[in-house]
Amino acid sequence: MTAFPPALLETEHEQVVFCHDEPSGLKAVIAIHSTALGPALGGTRFYPYASTADAVDDVLNLSRGMSYKAALAGLDLGGGKAVIIGDPKTLKTETLLRAYGRFVQSLAGRYYTACDVGTYSADMDHIARECDFVTGRTVAHGGAGDSSVLTAYGVFQGMRAAAEATWGEPTLGGRTVGVAGVGKVGHHLVRHLVEDGASVVVTDVWQPALDRVVEEFPQVQVVGSTEELVTAQIDVYAPCALGGAITDAVVETTPAVIVCGAANNQLEHPGIEKALAERGILYAPDYCVNSGGLIQVADELEGFSFERAQQRASGIFETTRAVFAAAREDGVPPAIAADRLAERRMRDVGRLRGIHLT
Amino acid sequence: MTAFPPALLETEHEQVVFCHDEPSGLKAVIAIHSTALGPALGGTRFYPYASTADAVDDVLNLSRGMSYKAALAGLDLGGGKAVIIGDPKTLKTETLLRAYGRFVQSLAGRYYTACDVGTYSADMDHIARECDFVTGRTVAHGGAGDSSVLTAYGVFQGMRAAAEATWGEPTLGGRTVGVAGVGKVGHHLVRHLVEDGASVVVTDVWQPALDRVVEEFPQVQVVGSTEELVTAQIDVYAPCALGGAITDAVVETTPAVIVCGAANNQLEHPGIEKALAERGILYAPDYCVNSGGLIQVADELEGFSFERAQQRASGIFETTRAVFAAAREDGVPPAIAADRLAERRMRDVGRLRGIHLT
Repeated sequence: MTAFPPALLETEHEQVVFCHDEPSGLKAVIAIHSTALGPALGGTRFYPYASTADAVDDVLNLSRGMSYKAALAGLDLGGGKAVIIGDPKTLKTETLLRAYGRFVQSLAGRYYTACDVGTYSADMDHIARECDFVTGRTVAHGGAGDSSVLTAYGVFQGMRAAAEATWGEPTLGGRTVGVAGVGKVGHHLVRHLVEDGASVVVTDVWQPALDRVVEEFPQVQVVGSTEELVTAQIDVYAPCALGGAITDAVVETTPAVIVCGAANNQLEHPGIEKALAERGILYAPDYCVNSGGLIQVADELEGFSFERAQQRASGIFETTRAVFAAAREDGVPPAIAADRLAERRMRDVGRLRGIHLT
Repeated sequence: MTAFPPALLETEHEQVVFCHDEPSGLKAVIAIHSTALGPALGGTRFYPYASTADAVDDVLNLSRGMSYKAALAGLDLGGGKAVIIGDPKTLKTETLLRAYGRFVQSLAGRYYTACDVGTYSADMDHIARECDFVTGRTVAHGGAGDSSVLTAYGVFQGMRAAAEATWGEPTLGGRTVGVAGVGKVGHHLVRHLVEDGASVVVTDVWQPALDRVVEEFPQVQVVGSTEELVTAQIDVYAPCALGGAITDAVVETTPAVIVCGAANNQLEHPGIEKALAERGILYAPDYCVNSGGLIQVADELEGFSFERAQQRASGIFETTRAVFAAAREDGVPPAIAADRLAERRMRDVGRLRGIHLT
């Protein structure tokens, strides 16, 4: 017996699939939020949730986010996500992954999976032995490989659009950017910023990541905490670590006039997008600027081409521009404008299937 | 917010699928209990459940029952069931049925649907316009038509096996059989019994059903209630209406020495199979003897042949015999023996897929 928070048939999701294979220990939930624009794509998170209800809550939220991300990125994809409940360190086996693959296969292409927290390209290769609907595979198996390159590239494009909206020119040259989190994506972002002529301040909880950045870019300044970074003399704040980075305290204390980073779900609570706007801070919506990774794995569906994927990711500049323009036009914060643009595309382009073709 | 009784990933079910289409009002849950023997087959129940939790509870129980029924009937099918939540009188539309059909299609043949409470062959025709995995269609569309004929025939075969086990001869000739519920199945059962030389007592809450029976078989005796029927001088009690017909009161008061009928889930609570055995009443397990309808719709998958389906349904005689023999051998009530035979077949025949064929 467990209290079951989201009434599964009261959500806006099209389909939620519980998958169970006792012998392998597989307990998975696949959520398909929308297929208005195409098959749902989203990663499989392998995580020791405290309860099934927590897992369901997470997969419903994440899959909804994927619909909006794919729609705004201009992809012909819907939004989906999956969670496997348990500790990947002890539970992950070839058998479990392949059992999961059979359930993904059973959805007949309505859901494509990919890597997420706790799953890696090698895991996708196992899943793909039972299933045709897998992205994020190893390069040897036709996968796109490390998606941090284009994620960082896309965030940089979004930041250029924010710079243009703020200072008139699409460049970070001469500005100071604070990057919180210099794992793979943050590291690549620092490179783009340095090459563009920006001053960069970084922080990370993991010393080796900081060491690698300083080794490659000695001019980068390191500070001891995110609080210190946020309140330093920065023009742009780029959250590239955990979600919930934009708190009321950040909005009140940072001198930054732009927030644009790679982290997911940056807004710590609903309404904070309004607080940002009221303080004159331009927020480039997270799922708008961090869609480079999705663009990359989506490209695998056509047979991966880095050039083509990079060209699509460079479109994040125009998309972010369009979000800011719509925000101005509608008199709403950019986060709201982005949602509206995504919803409009799902509705308008989704409707086109009504024009019959044989 | 709703308390959610069955922890969906703690059940033994392989897959539970929540399907939602806002514009048409579709809220459906498809449960696949087991595919050890083949694709899951089971009807779609369209019913105004008081809550989603009630609907889930029902679909989990019903789909489990289908696994056992198909396994014991010797079919190459697993067990599944679906529920559509709502009042079919007001909610059922072509659009809703076709939206549902697309979700059934999305399971790629792991689940075949059929008629159940609140759905009819004409509904299956609508579903089949979006879906390849539909049985129970209208005759004009290749369906098997009314499944009550073979359901009744199968129950009669099971009753013959019970008569043999009790009196030494597989006939009801000279015995008195009480049939509670003379809708379509009960009516056909009365015909078999009369032709076999039995005396028949019937009851029903619906007068027109009684009128039809008496018109065709004037020798049949009508009584006013199920209580009256159960305590009349009958040798065999055949529950052919609602589930839960075998209560403690029935076990204590009936003079019948055989219980064998068409109703589903006859045992009102767990343990009552033991009470029946202790009072010397031979119980022919419900899902063992009432599988004629499933056998009929399953036959559609090969292109329906009434002769072939009837031949399979006549096998219910041997199956019921085997259940009684296993019960004697293991020293358990027939209901337990039937479960064990079904489970053994799922395990043993299911295992054969491990022998690779190209």
